[in-house]
Amino acid sequence: MRATVDPERACRLVNHGPTLLVSAAHEGRRTLMAAAWSMPVEFAPPRIAVVVDRKTFTRELIAASGTLALCVPCRAQADLVWTVGSVSGRDAARDGTDKFRRYGIGWFDGPTLGLPCVEGCVAWMEARVIAEPHTEDAYDTFFVEVVSAQADPRVFADGRWSFREDNADLHTLHHLGAGVFAVPSQTVAARALPARDA
Amino acid sequence: MRATVDPERACRLVNHGPTLLVSAAHEGRRTLMAAAWSMPVEFAPPRIAVVVDRKTFTRELIAASGTLALCVPCRAQADLVWTVGSVSGRDAARDGTDKFRRYGIGWFDGPTLGLPCVEGCVAWMEARVIAEPHTEDAYDTFFVEVVSAQADPRVFADGRWSFREDNADLHTLHHLGAGVFAVPSQTVAARALPARDA
Repeated sequence: MRATVDPERACRLVNHGPTLLVSAAHEGRRTLMAAAWSMPVEFAPPRIAVVVDRKTFTRELIAASGTLALCVPCRAQADLVWTVGSVSGRDAARDGTDKFRRYGIGWFDGPTLGLPCVEGCVAWMEARVIAEPHTEDAYDTFFVEVVSAQADPRVFADGRWSFREDNADLHTLHHLGAGVFAVPSQTVAARALPARDA
Repeated sequence: MRATVDPERACRLVNHGPTLLVSAAHEGRRTLMAAAWSMPVEFAPPRIAVVVDRKTFTRELIAASGTLALCVPCRAQADLVWTVGSVSGRDAARDGTDKFRRYGIGWFDGPTLGLPCVEGCVAWMEARVIAEPHTEDAYDTFFVEVVSAQADPRVFADGRWSFREDNADLHTLHHLGAGVFAVPSQTVAARALPARDA
């Protein structure tokens, strides 16, 4: 299930630090990888920073196309996330295939840029790279601007995530390391503390 | 409780996207703020990117000192995190106090730089800013290198987080927005998928 998200709410999709899938395509080639390292940097315009290692095939396709898609995977996809984060898309390309076909990963074309978005995820964004050669080179860090955003309304509606017992399979993944992911299955609502010297 | 963490494991402390407390001090002034937007950018040397808005008092003290501390708060501190993220340290300074005193927040001096680290958090890092004037200006993004790291061994040991029922109050916080935090109270261990064309 997919519903359009107001781009100015797009940063809410990644505000809580989920591990993402990054996909890219260029001239008939496509791939995807896992990315634990991303963060919003601005709500409006919606801008996100994401680390994409220079050795990856995804990086090659991002550099060639100037675009990427960010998908937010869910608990039901933990094995998929770990797998695409552990194998090289360049190996798959050398064998005349890609990670989507190799692992039976469904996709749909993103609404604005036509980038491959992963079926079964709970949110999807397409983005254009803001050229920052120095940070790309020094920190493998790309700054991107979101141009389309969608989310599964069963778990993200009215601009916010709603993690409940009845949608546990749709909760986001947060990589602790070595293939173990934390899942934000509980929430707490904070209250303002009183000032002591007020 | 605090135990030293190997700096090359420091990125594991924030790999899963927790909301942080950022503290800074300069010439007798000190403050802290909440920061939902951070990410590792390199394991070794341990480097992290964090967004600090240009209007904050924390930013002023970071710019003056070239250093900051990153503390990882836990579930028991949700009200504290929300509060220090909602009020201005500049207002407190104008009243001759600071957010630590105003809200009764305990601290200890960081082991390497002496920066104020928040008591009750579950991990603490001190870091030096790597000067990147362009990204600081364009994206409020600071790249920092971690010079000391500690964690509470009840919840982080042997280089990894261990979120269990018996340490629920020590689980990290992940800001969903508007003072609601997700808590990673469950974990899943992923397995590699078989290749379909292997």
